Amino acid sequence: MPIDLSSQIIHAVRSVVGPGKVMLHEPRFNGNEYKYLKECLDSTFVSSVGKYVEQFERSLEDYTGAKFAVTVVNGTAALHVALSLAGVKAYDEVLLPSLTFVATANAVTYLNAIPHFIDCEEQTLGIDPEALRDYLKYNTEIVNGQCINRHTGNVIRAVVPMHTFGHPANIEAILAVSNDFYLTVVEDASESLGSYLHGRHTGTFGLIGTLSFNGNKTITTGGGGALLTNNREISLRAKHITTTAKIPHRWRYDHDEIGFNYRLPNLNAALGCAQLEQLEGYLQKKRSLFNSYKSSFQNITGLKLFEEPRGSRSNYWLQCILLDKNMGYQLDNILSATNDDGLMTRPLWTLMHKLPMYSKFPRAPLPVSESLSSRIINIPSSYFLS
Amino acid sequence: MPIDLSSQIIHAVRSVVGPGKVMLHEPRFNGNEYKYLKECLDSTFVSSVGKYVEQFERSLEDYTGAKFAVTVVNGTAALHVALSLAGVKAYDEVLLPSLTFVATANAVTYLNAIPHFIDCEEQTLGIDPEALRDYLKYNTEIVNGQCINRHTGNVIRAVVPMHTFGHPANIEAILAVSNDFYLTVVEDASESLGSYLHGRHTGTFGLIGTLSFNGNKTITTGGGGALLTNNREISLRAKHITTTAKIPHRWRYDHDEIGFNYRLPNLNAALGCAQLEQLEGYLQKKRSLFNSYKSSFQNITGLKLFEEPRGSRSNYWLQCILLDKNMGYQLDNILSATNDDGLMTRPLWTLMHKLPMYSKFPRAPLPVSESLSSRIINIPSSYFLS
Repeated sequence: MPIDLSSQIIHAVRSVVGPGKVMLHEPRFNGNEYKYLKECLDSTFVSSVGKYVEQFERSLEDYTGAKFAVTVVNGTAALHVALSLAGVKAYDEVLLPSLTFVATANAVTYLNAIPHFIDCEEQTLGIDPEALRDYLKYNTEIVNGQCINRHTGNVIRAVVPMHTFGHPANIEAILAVSNDFYLTVVEDASESLGSYLHGRHTGTFGLIGTLSFNGNKTITTGGGGALLTNNREISLRAKHITTTAKIPHRWRYDHDEIGFNYRLPNLNAALGCAQLEQLEGYLQKKRSLFNSYKSSFQNITGLKLFEEPRGSRSNYWLQCILLDKNMGYQLDNILSATNDDGLMTRPLWTLMHKLPMYSKFPRAPLPVSESLSSRIINIPSSYFLS
Repeated sequence: MPIDLSSQIIHAVRSVVGPGKVMLHEPRFNGNEYKYLKECLDSTFVSSVGKYVEQFERSLEDYTGAKFAVTVVNGTAALHVALSLAGVKAYDEVLLPSLTFVATANAVTYLNAIPHFIDCEEQTLGIDPEALRDYLKYNTEIVNGQCINRHTGNVIRAVVPMHTFGHPANIEAILAVSNDFYLTVVEDASESLGSYLHGRHTGTFGLIGTLSFNGNKTITTGGGGALLTNNREISLRAKHITTTAKIPHRWRYDHDEIGFNYRLPNLNAALGCAQLEQLEGYLQKKRSLFNSYKSSFQNITGLKLFEEPRGSRSNYWLQCILLDKNMGYQLDNILSATNDDGLMTRPLWTLMHKLPMYSKFPRAPLPVSESLSSRIINIPSSYFLS
């Protein structure tokens, strides 16, 4: 039995995934992908028009229970548009976790708005609702139904919880705080297609939710994303401004506002349709992979395998080891040893407030995020490893 | 022989394209498209990594003669990034034609810069170099090697000539004026892949050129675009900021600036590789289509078929009828009659300064653009109609 922690982790992972080089997360195309791509080529509609965009959007609505889904070119574009439709304008302020992928923060700055970074809770890896409440209580006041930053006088417009590695954040409590402070919730559900809290799909709690279908996600369209909302007006606005704000006409090219070219090509939507058909199977296998890892890690001291929060069903997008607090010093050793062994692993994204372009923005105390950033390791998570 | 102009036009177009519904511009996939898509799926690399992105970029370099090509998610993204790399910042001012697709102007405003609209010349449909010079002469002064708008004190940073319908603008003269006024030239070559002026490919004259591979373009990737440049530093910066500005590392996720998620998925690049292999054939057929139209339109008075400018080889992306000045009143009749007949035709895009969101921005006198906007009709242009 190996004794150092790196060797124990390698042993535990290998006992599940077998030998050879193993990537962190890969897709497979064993369903109707070839068929739909061929049909898409045969139709000649590979671009901005075609049946797969429509079909993919309706299937996403069926799957998530959102009334409306609008596909876009990627998850970053979805966040950008969602925040814009949530009313975020230049000099507005937006609260988001420091523990997230950089797209969440970038989308805020694309609108010339100001991000604030909030702490997470260890149980969910998502925004801590009480830390959010405390931050708002000490730094804001409500004036005419708007949340005003006492220090800057700007409106705090929105909060963007993110469902880390597919595990649902404590979104109901975050919503309650947001309601108390007149904030709009935009849910970054980029990682959590197939994840539910109390039976409701992530991304459908806030005014708008966003999805990503990047190649490393549970299902992929090559590159793609979507907005989810129950608000018809917002869905229509989303479709309009992501398609250059063109006014429909047989031949005229009129546009009534500054729009984006964010539409998902029909070619990519065709891939999405085929992938979505297989999602339930992927989810079962990812859960089964979690259970295999749970067995293989159970006798290792100094860490635990991260498990879906209570009340939730997680998609287990990225399997995650959480080192004990006194083991964080081992992080780099473990990352080196596992990657050297051909097992692709990674730590948390560098926290937003540690990145040079975001280090000067306001932030709450971030003790949990800081602690997690030295303790989290993602291990190979592709569904077919189960 | 039909007597009214609409009927004559329908007759002339039908004599070339035959009966039935005929779209304005459609792609066909008769080369290696399906093979490469299949290989792409087989490799599982459909997203941000994969050989086709690399192969497509190198093939674009070979084809255009640009030293560097960087692919992105669409032509709008290419313009956005190109302007940013040309140094355009908030409150800078940028000159562009009023006669263009809305993406050219939108890209300027994404950077919080201010567009000015310049007139075109009837011979090229591109920016009129003398109108550009006059506008700059009367409205700017050079201070410390920068072109300053006398009225606002802002820097005029760049000019964005666009090669309309694939016909090369008078880019050499535009460059000369731009040099005199210390302006950077970003060429919007979205429509002109395969078009040359004096043997040099459009998009390679300015500091940066941009391409589009939307479904309606000469070749398509579903959605896609590219930047062309001869400047290595700019090409490296373009790749970096279009891929979230991530610093390469085996496992760390560090980003050193606010980047974009603008990468072209490998799936779309695979389509592009197959399409580009067929470009020369498409161009020959589009030229042959022009020649057929030229014969069929030769006896119609009141219009002429637009022909590539002297010294250029145009890709003839969209075939274009130019009504005589006294025939502009017939435009709507002709558009109705042709579309009712199943021949898809369209007028110029609504001029930028006529759109509600751009009507308040500065502009030069625009007599030629105004005149052209009542006289141009694009007729079916797909290569396979020849």
